[in-house]
Amino acid sequence: MKLSDLTHRAGEWLRGVGPMHDVVISSRVRYARNLAGMPFLSRCTGEQLRELETRLRDTVLDSRLADEMLYVDVAAAGKLDRELVVERHLISRQHADGRHPRGVAISGSETMAVMVNEEDHLRIQVLRSGLQLSEAFEDLSRIDQLLEERVSFAFHDRYGYLTACPTNVGTGLRVSVMLHLPALKLTGQIEKAFRAAKELHLAIRGLYGEGTEATGDFFQVSNQTTLGKSEPQILEEFSTEMVPNFIDYERKARHALLNRQARALEDRVYRAHAALRSARLISSEETMYMLSLVRLGASLGLIKDIDVHTLNELFLQTQPAHLQRLLNREMDGQERSAARSDFIRRRLSQN
Amino acid sequence: MKLSDLTHRAGEWLRGVGPMHDVVISSRVRYARNLAGMPFLSRCTGEQLRELETRLRDTVLDSRLADEMLYVDVAAAGKLDRELVVERHLISRQHADGRHPRGVAISGSETMAVMVNEEDHLRIQVLRSGLQLSEAFEDLSRIDQLLEERVSFAFHDRYGYLTACPTNVGTGLRVSVMLHLPALKLTGQIEKAFRAAKELHLAIRGLYGEGTEATGDFFQVSNQTTLGKSEPQILEEFSTEMVPNFIDYERKARHALLNRQARALEDRVYRAHAALRSARLISSEETMYMLSLVRLGASLGLIKDIDVHTLNELFLQTQPAHLQRLLNREMDGQERSAARSDFIRRRLSQN
Repeated sequence: MKLSDLTHRAGEWLRGVGPMHDVVISSRVRYARNLAGMPFLSRCTGEQLRELETRLRDTVLDSRLADEMLYVDVAAAGKLDRELVVERHLISRQHADGRHPRGVAISGSETMAVMVNEEDHLRIQVLRSGLQLSEAFEDLSRIDQLLEERVSFAFHDRYGYLTACPTNVGTGLRVSVMLHLPALKLTGQIEKAFRAAKELHLAIRGLYGEGTEATGDFFQVSNQTTLGKSEPQILEEFSTEMVPNFIDYERKARHALLNRQARALEDRVYRAHAALRSARLISSEETMYMLSLVRLGASLGLIKDIDVHTLNELFLQTQPAHLQRLLNREMDGQERSAARSDFIRRRLSQN
Repeated sequence: MKLSDLTHRAGEWLRGVGPMHDVVISSRVRYARNLAGMPFLSRCTGEQLRELETRLRDTVLDSRLADEMLYVDVAAAGKLDRELVVERHLISRQHADGRHPRGVAISGSETMAVMVNEEDHLRIQVLRSGLQLSEAFEDLSRIDQLLEERVSFAFHDRYGYLTACPTNVGTGLRVSVMLHLPALKLTGQIEKAFRAAKELHLAIRGLYGEGTEATGDFFQVSNQTTLGKSEPQILEEFSTEMVPNFIDYERKARHALLNRQARALEDRVYRAHAALRSARLISSEETMYMLSLVRLGASLGLIKDIDVHTLNELFLQTQPAHLQRLLNREMDGQERSAARSDFIRRRLSQN
């Protein structure tokens, strides 16, 4: 398996299936883990960083975590390859931009990614399409156990798993979902929903994690508490209360639009669809917003000839690094805008 | 002939034919005339205004100026009918909004309109499609002579024809063309062209005359000097120097766009076309801009399935009063936006 194999497909978790996929793009769970007896990364010497990377790479690859595994040496990878895995949500922006020995192990289906030497020694992530947090969590536990058979993680009897940032101490578990909330945005209710989420100690971020703007009406919602609650509690609250509330708000807003502002909604959706099919220059940001509206239209039956899977693929394939890999040439922003519009028109006319 | 007969057609002068019709929408010439022995309108009593209107109406209708003639009693006409003739450039906004006895005589082809009691007792206008100023002027002279056989116009041996506003004194002749200058606008050269025009004592106005903003890249260019130059001089300078310069600048700008910024041009043109074919709500202002870009695209061969005649008709038929007359119901702005988008989609899918 090579990195270039990934470019042409959307990744299991973007298949546009799974429960509640009209609103929930994907579910993600991750553990932060550090080896016992080694300093946190910020305290490591260069030698220790190299040693950690080699040791953890071997451990991860030897643990048979998945049928097919690919290890990307992020420090040695070219800029475009690093961007590519960021765009696929397999590593963080910070991990891509680092300057020390680091890497990521990816399963063939991309439902699993283990970052080596990110903020913690290990960040183990499992992704699923739609709302499938418990299924994702089962897989995460299995992976964590397989790794613990080979290494010892830093653990404190009272505090739990020790992590570089205090917000992760305890379970080390972060649970998040990527939500598509275009109707809450269009109807101006999104701020209200966010305020409610913050009172419940949820963090809300953009499509590409911490510090990024929400793009194309996609929002990543995650828990902030990892200490003082058990894992089942965290998961239970998140997947049976918090996320369903968001889904419910968004669905109600969609139907209110359809019933009370059908004209305005149709206008937005059909214009977006037409813009994607007619543009000769288009930025990735505009693409996101247009795809977002078309996705909304498809979920409400206004647009019938495009499936969610194609749209999800386009979200990914129109990102800068993907586009360049798919078309097999490096391009500046202006060239990408032209190539992106051609690519989108071709894809949408195949439908 | 009834006023409602006009609604469904574009008017001879909007046929999209005639010399230079890629840039010149229409040519217009008009005379300002006042009856000898009667005060200017601002000095008239109510009785005199009524008398003038009756007398001039009869004179105009008796003079056999055209095969078919319609007289609209503007003072008695409803708001929608008044708007309709403004949108068709048959009367001025000021004439529509007046509160005194007044009217307009219109020939069947709409190439001639004689306003009674506008700023002057008579405003005689002749319109032609494309650049046909001398043809229009011949017709204007013919009409003027027919009228002078029946009435005496106020005339001063030294100053020429006397008019309510000193800027019209002399020949009373105003010569103008409606130009479509989207490429000069897109390339940012329009201000430069306007400065050059002002140095040549040309006035530049929007689509609906004095005090209106240029809409959809349409500009009305007219002479400002009526005193001290002969009619042949005015016409000659205007139609063989000034207008050809504009046409030349605009055509060069179009080809520069096509050669050097083809992508950006195609992007604007195709998106505009797509917006018109997909919108479910659209204002008349946006319609103008989108039609303007599509007209540019059609003139450059980028859009092949729409002719200029259809576009010219749409410019007119999507105006508020026309739309309401065509659909036979009064509508507020929001309802018009919806109805306009439906109307445009229907028309464009017929092509």
